Amino acid sequence: MTIDRDLIFDLFARYGALIDSARYEQWLGLFAAECRYQVMPSENSRQGLPAALIYCDSRAMLEDRLLALCQANKYNIHTDRHLIGLPRIIGAEGTRVVVEASFAVFQTDAEGGSQLFATGLYHDALVMTDGQLKIADKFVLLDTFAVPHLLASPL
Amino acid sequence: MTIDRDLIFDLFARYGALIDSARYEQWLGLFAAECRYQVMPSENSRQGLPAALIYCDSRAMLEDRLLALCQANKYNIHTDRHLIGLPRIIGAEGTRVVVEASFAVFQTDAEGGSQLFATGLYHDALVMTDGQLKIADKFVLLDTFAVPHLLASPL
Amino acid sequence: MTIDRDLIFDLFARYGALIDSARYEQWLGLFAAECRYQVMPSENSRQGLPAALIYCDSRAMLEDRLLALCQANKYNIHTDRHLIGLPRIIGAEGTRVVVEASFAVFQTDAEGGSQLFATGLYHDALVMTDGQLKIADKFVLLDTFAVPHLLASPL
Repeated sequence: MTIDRDLIFDLFARYGALIDSARYEQWLGLFAAECRYQVMPSENSRQGLPAALIYCDSRAMLEDRLLALCQANKYNIHTDRHLIGLPRIIGAEGTRVVVEASFAVFQTDAEGGSQLFATGLYHDALVMTDGQLKIADKFVLLDTFAVPHLLASPL
Repeated sequence: MTIDRDLIFDLFARYGALIDSARYEQWLGLFAAECRYQVMPSENSRQGLPAALIYCDSRAMLEDRLLALCQANKYNIHTDRHLIGLPRIIGAEGTRVVVEASFAVFQTDAEGGSQLFATGLYHDALVMTDGQLKIADKFVLLDTFAVPHLLASPL
Repeated sequence: MTIDRDLIFDLFARYGALIDSARYEQWLGLFAAECRYQVMPSENSRQGLPAALIYCDSRAMLEDRLLALCQANKYNIHTDRHLIGLPRIIGAEGTRVVVEASFAVFQTDAEGGSQLFATGLYHDALVMTDGQLKIADKFVLLDTFAVPHLLASPL
């Protein structure tokens, strides 16, 4: 598969922007029909422990999880701001392209205080579907299990 | 209008770099002769309230505001560091290209302490003028009205 | 020398990723055989004082320094996360390309706490060697001399 860098950069830029503007339906649309989404703290990843904070292996499951998050959100009014680093194209695996990018998420609460919420690494497998680049597998490596607040929006 | 991604990426990279190195005259030069620059907290933006923290609808006004900022700066010795996320090209509107990018600004004070100063989103309309890409309209959406210090350099 | 933007973006992306995943040997491999690496606080840089926090003017010296860092690391268990801004291509100087990029490094300690560690600017001279883009000169401008912890991994 040939790699179109512009599409990859655009996908990562949209990914963060859609969460930050709470357009979660469109954010869901970035995933392929068959997809997986995991959030794993690096403590588990380093020790080979398979438990994830969030594990969804279908888009329906991801949608369900998203609804739960948005429900929790009512008790944790905040806005997110993603900063996503330069995507690093690791290579092609069959029809997938593996790409990594570091990220930081800042949250602003209802009192107007902004702070660092989480840092980590996206490890993604991307596929072309109907002429669009979609996320087939998203592995969110969180730098810590100890996120300061409720995980109330997608990372 | 065809979109040259490289020019767009370069413009955003220069934008942050010129502020961080206090080259404000060159920073002004990134704006088109006819331009608008606004900083608005998301609290106002969400409620449709038009009041901006900073509102300049000409380059002369922006220059004047900049002088005032630099004056205030004498009482708030600090350096800025911008981190600007991947630009997201929204599309063309006539002769303008609309682009968004998230940002974080960190400030370091005279005692050597660095901290998060502000996060937000740039929503820009860019134009080609005399072969150069310039900012016609910059809307700085601040994630909070409660910036921790004096707004003593451009965002 | 013609400038291949993709190679430049890839080099910066790999630079941060290799440190963050503690692949220091591969990180060393990003430097040209003849290279220089400096970390200088902006306080010194502004006043023209030549003293650097770290100064290595050969790859052997950089390797030695790296071993010392990794040793110190045993007493400062942490992981790094680099966020590197959009590279800004300054221009060509003979066979070198000069590129700048702002950065922020976040550290997560053994208790799972993440915080801002350092912000600054990379000012790099890059060269093509055997078909690969390498770092000939890396000048890490730190925004403060007062880094909160031990400088126990490369910046």
